[in-house]
Amino acid sequence: MPADPNRVIANLRELAALTSDAEGAQRIAFTPMWRKAREWFAGKLAELPVTQHRDAAGNVWITLAGASPRALVLGSHIDSVPCGGWLDGALGVVTALEVLSGIARDSSGRPPFTVRVVDWADEEGARFGRSLFGSSAFAGTQTIAADRVRTDHDGTTMEAALAECGIKIDRIGEAASERENIAAYLELHIEQGPVLERLGLPLGAVLGTKGVERHNITFLGQTAHSGSTPMGERHDALAAAARLALEIRPIAMRHADAVCTMGSLKTSPGIVTAVVGRAEATLDQRDLDATILATMLREAKEASHHFAEQERCTVEWSKILSIEPVPFHPQLVALCREAISETLGTPAHSLPSGPLHDASEVARIGIPTAMMFAQSLGGISHNKIEDTREEHLRLAVKAFDRLAAKTLDWMKSQ
Amino acid sequence: MPADPNRVIANLRELAALTSDAEGAQRIAFTPMWRKAREWFAGKLAELPVTQHRDAAGNVWITLAGASPRALVLGSHIDSVPCGGWLDGALGVVTALEVLSGIARDSSGRPPFTVRVVDWADEEGARFGRSLFGSSAFAGTQTIAADRVRTDHDGTTMEAALAECGIKIDRIGEAASERENIAAYLELHIEQGPVLERLGLPLGAVLGTKGVERHNITFLGQTAHSGSTPMGERHDALAAAARLALEIRPIAMRHADAVCTMGSLKTSPGIVTAVVGRAEATLDQRDLDATILATMLREAKEASHHFAEQERCTVEWSKILSIEPVPFHPQLVALCREAISETLGTPAHSLPSGPLHDASEVARIGIPTAMMFAQSLGGISHNKIEDTREEHLRLAVKAFDRLAAKTLDWMKSQ
Repeated sequence: MPADPNRVIANLRELAALTSDAEGAQRIAFTPMWRKAREWFAGKLAELPVTQHRDAAGNVWITLAGASPRALVLGSHIDSVPCGGWLDGALGVVTALEVLSGIARDSSGRPPFTVRVVDWADEEGARFGRSLFGSSAFAGTQTIAADRVRTDHDGTTMEAALAECGIKIDRIGEAASERENIAAYLELHIEQGPVLERLGLPLGAVLGTKGVERHNITFLGQTAHSGSTPMGERHDALAAAARLALEIRPIAMRHADAVCTMGSLKTSPGIVTAVVGRAEATLDQRDLDATILATMLREAKEASHHFAEQERCTVEWSKILSIEPVPFHPQLVALCREAISETLGTPAHSLPSGPLHDASEVARIGIPTAMMFAQSLGGISHNKIEDTREEHLRLAVKAFDRLAAKTLDWMKSQ
Repeated sequence: MPADPNRVIANLRELAALTSDAEGAQRIAFTPMWRKAREWFAGKLAELPVTQHRDAAGNVWITLAGASPRALVLGSHIDSVPCGGWLDGALGVVTALEVLSGIARDSSGRPPFTVRVVDWADEEGARFGRSLFGSSAFAGTQTIAADRVRTDHDGTTMEAALAECGIKIDRIGEAASERENIAAYLELHIEQGPVLERLGLPLGAVLGTKGVERHNITFLGQTAHSGSTPMGERHDALAAAARLALEIRPIAMRHADAVCTMGSLKTSPGIVTAVVGRAEATLDQRDLDATILATMLREAKEASHHFAEQERCTVEWSKILSIEPVPFHPQLVALCREAISETLGTPAHSLPSGPLHDASEVARIGIPTAMMFAQSLGGISHNKIEDTREEHLRLAVKAFDRLAAKTLDWMKSQ
């Protein structure tokens, strides 16, 4: 008996009713509402032949023991951003549990391989600004020294908030012990972007998560009186920044799925009667291919120096962060395409993910990983109006269930 | 006996020493330091055959009565911005008094025409944000309703600060009575821009003050995730604003002395991970020719709508202010060129003024007006490092003295 899409949708509605207010979902990690969501989730295990435990980083693991200890893991996160939607993260864990339930039923509680569901702790990083908390600890990319000094808006330290949930910040790395015997990891998530909707497709196979290069760029010119400084005498830092804001677009568009974004531009002194002496921009560049990402960064740097020189300014770069691209496992991505194609009766579409996901952390350490996306209406997420058509959610549950079966089959050959 | 440049420089040094601190000149209008500067100036009249009075707007008038009541007025302002320089405004009033002294000496205290010096009140508007306060009251362009609610950083109302100096805000328009019998107005000022220095010229004849069109321009696009929104799907408000920031330059450069400046650009939400949904820019456009100014405004509006459409954004304009260009009197400008040319022994250069001056208010009501500029080092003013070479100050005093003599001659023919 396969996974039941209607039960998934009913459970998601129940969770939303329990953990939302008029402004949306409020399942912020390490808060009482998040713990309430997790208690609700634990309540769904009552009639299943599973064990449950929490690891050192606060990730919850539900295990259906199989004939072999080698495990297929299905996961996502139950935490949300403040005023979030009903699907981001929750769709993945609720579907994962439904798929595990189906496998338990079909195998009379003893499948050939172990199947596990994981609810990663604090994927969003909404309260302390550290996203992928639990999956990073699992992957060994935790940042304890930096995390220790993080505080929320009220001044509560991350360390204290973790302790309140029984998590010792010094020991989160011990979550790595959960890696043992994991043969594959699968995650279902909403797209959070407009691509599938534009193509009229309910589902997509995710190729991986894009790498990110994120920098602050400061152009320094010369503040001058807007009335008395001839056009040809200016050192206009805004002009240099404006040229870069436009140039990053062809730099991105030379590659199929690459993006470059100038999300912030600040001008100083920033008054109507003065030529801008200082312009501070941010640049966010993403692609799934590390070579393309490096090329785009080099081209943006070269362009910025060229524009600074032409505008008689100087330019300085400082890195905010770099994240390596994480391509998913080619064979599992192929299985994901098959599952989608068989469910829809049409060819499957593949796309990279711009946002990071817990799956990136899992794949980063070499565990075969794949993700499936369900269409997002209007590409909107992190907002109470986040939504996906129920018919698309039903197709997503069916296709993800099929992907799990195909992956269990694939594990036999590994 | 002509005006003595060395006495002008000595007086300016004396005034600076009396009214500056380590950060520069502090002669902010309607403060004790401003009153101290005016007392010092009054002290310089002791041996002159003049009368002094203050009009209803706080402008100080010094009158050397001539055979005819028809008057030549020489003026500028003794107030400064906070942390200002030693020349802006002060050069004009101190030179005016020296020129009047020379005329008094040469005519044994009874010249053919009346000669007056005016120290306009609060040219800078530094404390309450209302520049040209005294000269506007004189010209009938006062803004009493708006001024009444102005406050300084400490919450003191402009009305109270005026009252403390004996000025009743409701009566400042009575300064218009000073217009009677004025035949011509002359003002010497530092350029506050880089043009004369670039040309290697000590002095310039001012053609008039440029008109100003000043607007807020808001581009509205769509905030979107920087990772999941393909380049071709964006409604990037920053891109539209950046295109306008660059397009205003050719719009200005099609005309000899026109300027267009985007002095401020603010992005919302202004975070590194989001496409900009809202970009708020300021635009300041200036030219001496009203037709050119109107053309530049129209072109900038058309360009903004074109870019908004191409970037799938919308754009809204809201006016901050419009100021009409004020060309000076052609015959007096010609005399100014003659005076410069005869003093320097080289052809005179003419240029428009970007900044407004009290002379603009005087010329606006039809009083024949001219201004002379002395070179500013580095084009810098409103700063303690504002400076002009002493040799250039000496030439300025000589040329301005010569211009006063030529103007008195010209008055005979009027």
